[in-house]
Amino acid sequence: MRRKIDMRHNRIITLTTDFGTRDGFVGQMKGVILRIHPEATLVDVSHEIEPFNIVAAALVARGLSRYYPAGTTHLVVVDPGVGSERRGIALRSNGQMYVGPDNGLFTFVLGAADQSEIREIFNPDFMLPDPHPTFHGRDIFAPAASFLSRGCDFERVGPRVENPVLLRIPHPQETHDSLIGQIIYIDRFGNLTSNIQAEQLRKRVREVSIGDVSIKRISHFFAEAKEGRAVALINSFGHLEIAVNRGNASEVLGLSHGARIRVVWDE
Amino acid sequence: MRRKIDMRHNRIITLTTDFGTRDGFVGQMKGVILRIHPEATLVDVSHEIEPFNIVAAALVARGLSRYYPAGTTHLVVVDPGVGSERRGIALRSNGQMYVGPDNGLFTFVLGAADQSEIREIFNPDFMLPDPHPTFHGRDIFAPAASFLSRGCDFERVGPRVENPVLLRIPHPQETHDSLIGQIIYIDRFGNLTSNIQAEQLRKRVREVSIGDVSIKRISHFFAEAKEGRAVALINSFGHLEIAVNRGNASEVLGLSHGARIRVVWDE
Amino acid sequence: MRRKIDMRHNRIITLTTDFGTRDGFVGQMKGVILRIHPEATLVDVSHEIEPFNIVAAALVARGLSRYYPAGTTHLVVVDPGVGSERRGIALRSNGQMYVGPDNGLFTFVLGAADQSEIREIFNPDFMLPDPHPTFHGRDIFAPAASFLSRGCDFERVGPRVENPVLLRIPHPQETHDSLIGQIIYIDRFGNLTSNIQAEQLRKRVREVSIGDVSIKRISHFFAEAKEGRAVALINSFGHLEIAVNRGNASEVLGLSHGARIRVVWDE
Repeated sequence: MRRKIDMRHNRIITLTTDFGTRDGFVGQMKGVILRIHPEATLVDVSHEIEPFNIVAAALVARGLSRYYPAGTTHLVVVDPGVGSERRGIALRSNGQMYVGPDNGLFTFVLGAADQSEIREIFNPDFMLPDPHPTFHGRDIFAPAASFLSRGCDFERVGPRVENPVLLRIPHPQETHDSLIGQIIYIDRFGNLTSNIQAEQLRKRVREVSIGDVSIKRISHFFAEAKEGRAVALINSFGHLEIAVNRGNASEVLGLSHGARIRVVWDE
Repeated sequence: MRRKIDMRHNRIITLTTDFGTRDGFVGQMKGVILRIHPEATLVDVSHEIEPFNIVAAALVARGLSRYYPAGTTHLVVVDPGVGSERRGIALRSNGQMYVGPDNGLFTFVLGAADQSEIREIFNPDFMLPDPHPTFHGRDIFAPAASFLSRGCDFERVGPRVENPVLLRIPHPQETHDSLIGQIIYIDRFGNLTSNIQAEQLRKRVREVSIGDVSIKRISHFFAEAKEGRAVALINSFGHLEIAVNRGNASEVLGLSHGARIRVVWDE
Repeated sequence: MRRKIDMRHNRIITLTTDFGTRDGFVGQMKGVILRIHPEATLVDVSHEIEPFNIVAAALVARGLSRYYPAGTTHLVVVDPGVGSERRGIALRSNGQMYVGPDNGLFTFVLGAADQSEIREIFNPDFMLPDPHPTFHGRDIFAPAASFLSRGCDFERVGPRVENPVLLRIPHPQETHDSLIGQIIYIDRFGNLTSNIQAEQLRKRVREVSIGDVSIKRISHFFAEAKEGRAVALINSFGHLEIAVNRGNASEVLGLSHGARIRVVWDE
């Protein structure tokens, strides 16, 4: 039986942005949140998401879901389209709330969720008056997250959204004997994250191949390979990852975004 | 009627410094605050202010004022003169408190305030014993902010200061048909912040000119200009800014600190 | 009489890592902590410790000890050996708690402590179920710190450790007329931190010599030297440091890790 959507909320609000901290933008957002909800517990996840990298933020957002208490509100703002017509949305998904622009940021959260409810942030009661056109993070998303964390009715945010924007990342393809995916993200250590999620590895794996490399199993840790050799494992985002023990996989293997990865089943 | 200075305080203390976090200095400051005031809510604004850039920190501090609850304490430490004779000060201004060195950091906060009261941090009860000569952030400003946030009498901090140090940034000049200012800050996206504040744009604008560019109006957002074209708008600091839609204005226009900007009134 | 080990705990948990924030790893750790201990006060010290630099983290950890309230829990994770057989440990030392891998991170904390008790993190009740082999920060150290901060019995963590791993940094050598140490850390300003601690300067100093430079006293602040000249002082870690007034000591003096420093006593 699927879990019912959890209606609880707590006072934790996490923040994930590509704003950096140098110019004080994040500081302003935090002020907006605290003026609406002085008891909020602010948790910085990152303000160093690579600028405009929606895939990166979407992976980070998905990585958070499993670890926070039920009722946590996650504010995620990577927003290259600010000032255009793109919507703002609030989500309830597996007992947590998410707030941000409707540009694909929640693709992996939605993909991993049993069920979700999405609403457009439309009700001006959930925004600052006269929102600044280039700073919805502060004037729309921060107040919406703060009101939701305080316990305001989710239904009042705005109308239901049935067609959220999703990243155009192809789903891994099933063949008769394998699953074929691709690299979608490279972290700062050069580890290669694929679009294949842990849940999709349902059979025994005979081989993982990428570039010129063939890896014979899913490892539990880097050190299972010799120094400088490639290893395949499930990473912190919950995705299949190719790493190199004590090395930079992207450089060592000469692979980058879009590289094809193939998981061959054991018959 | 002007607002009376607000005497309330809350437990929020924001931190803005140029210390970086790598060496643990900020961590020590936070310990000092929490030992004095264990219930304080610490809010990181930035520890990545460009080292010794007082103008940048002054703009960030001004940007915070409008967004935090009344009674918030803002600790701002960019302090190239630490160890010399420069004073430390505490300010009450429009219902918020500010603590830091007296080196111009509060120029824009004071400029935007209805009224302010400034005191020198002189009373040793507001400091750690035997303050380290090169780390007043930890040993003087952090404890002073913490005691003030806890509710200690502002008057007890030290004697009144009537002549705080102000940045030597020329006020914009009024001519018969225009206002002439200059660029004082460039953010990490290359956007050019001028010394002209929103409140000084009291008439209808016919033109904003800077370098070789003439802009015909104050926009609301970047995308009002074509990609790669310049736009003038009021930014998050509350100042007139020149940006380039999807570009780096400083590079595209070849302009930097001190560049002259002219706002021509519509007769 | 030495202070008895303080058994109190408070709800403050500080975080010091080399994870950066870009990939959300720290965000996951914070979720784990808050799910176990929703009332915890999380304090970011640094996530920008130089990757795998255990000496740097050990200095930062030592620097924290003096400033936090009794009963604070310090989570310190710089963990190049994750996935290997290295132990995880929890320490009680001078009234504070420390949690992290047993790889030398607590060398200076232990060196400065009157007495300490160290236990291996062995009891699975203090971990997440099925800890990820490459992310003990999230699955072992974060929960252990969180349970300890919440007040769980320290004795239940696991067996006593009598031989914690210590950094192989030679102790300063005593000669008949001097103390000879070496540079062990260079901060982002180029200041040179030695292995000589404040407590070891028990006599009057006649001279500090390093490289080609002779310095005639321990100063209180940089500005006691002329611009561009070297100065010796006790830094924020509590160690003897060589700096250059308004300059980068490492570059100006051409000195780096391992450089020999000699303190000559005044007869």
